[in-house]
Amino acid sequence: MVRYYWEDLQPGSVRELGSVTPTADEIRAFAAQFDPQPFHLDEQAGRQSVFGGLCASGWHTCAMAMRLTVDNFLRESSSMGSPGLEKLSWLHPVFPGDRLTLRHTILESRPLRSKPELGLVRSSWEMSNQHGDKVLHMEGYGMFRRRQPA
Amino acid sequence: MVRYYWEDLQPGSVRELGSVTPTADEIRAFAAQFDPQPFHLDEQAGRQSVFGGLCASGWHTCAMAMRLTVDNFLRESSSMGSPGLEKLSWLHPVFPGDRLTLRHTILESRPLRSKPELGLVRSSWEMSNQHGDKVLHMEGYGMFRRRQPA
Repeated sequence: MVRYYWEDLQPGSVRELGSVTPTADEIRAFAAQFDPQPFHLDEQAGRQSVFGGLCASGWHTCAMAMRLTVDNFLRESSSMGSPGLEKLSWLHPVFPGDRLTLRHTILESRPLRSKPELGLVRSSWEMSNQHGDKVLHMEGYGMFRRRQPA
Repeated sequence: MVRYYWEDLQPGSVRELGSVTPTADEIRAFAAQFDPQPFHLDEQAGRQSVFGGLCASGWHTCAMAMRLTVDNFLRESSSMGSPGLEKLSWLHPVFPGDRLTLRHTILESRPLRSKPELGLVRSSWEMSNQHGDKVLHMEGYGMFRRRQPA
């Protein structure tokens, strides 16, 4: 079921990875488990914070971006995980009911010398809300199996 | 209940932020919701992958590190969120039953010119497993209210 091997992931290519709309319950549930700060748990605490309202944990925003990336790209690829990111910016709060749209751009690509069956791809992810505000920007790496090992 | 304002967060200070041990069920539950790749969902798919076994989503590892940071540091601080990270490295797979220990080091501190009531702190987080392997390294920023606004 693999459509995209490393060789198919060309620098400059842009993919729209769909959208997600978190509810207040989802925001509070994630926060209760992983980031129980008042402005992620409680509407009034959110209003009194710099954010101006109940807002999603930044890690929840990243996790939602990951789900869109898996569903709309990695699922059909030869992805073998990621060594990490070199940039992760939370640019604007994510509020309940926001419609978050994700765009993925391939920036660079190179073989992995240490593993001839894999290649490395550097990408950026930009997530925006329904008002056009960028809420998340990430740049980082993914490893993919090659169609033809070196 | 605030013990740590921006002024109290001095470069060079190191905090041990406790430990967490994810179960296979927790790893699969996070993956099912946010990162449904085979090696995060299924033991056999994990064994056949570069990771060598069922392993946690990198975002799950970050979320567990966040929970330790909130419980053992931010909860007693004047934290007002984070604009982002400049580094996020997933260095080693996280397997079910791994005991993950987190260390936080404050690297730099400066006032925020745009918001006189806040200061910015740059920190690193290092998470290691029970064998001493580093599994996660992050460097990034946090905003904290000041004891005395500028």
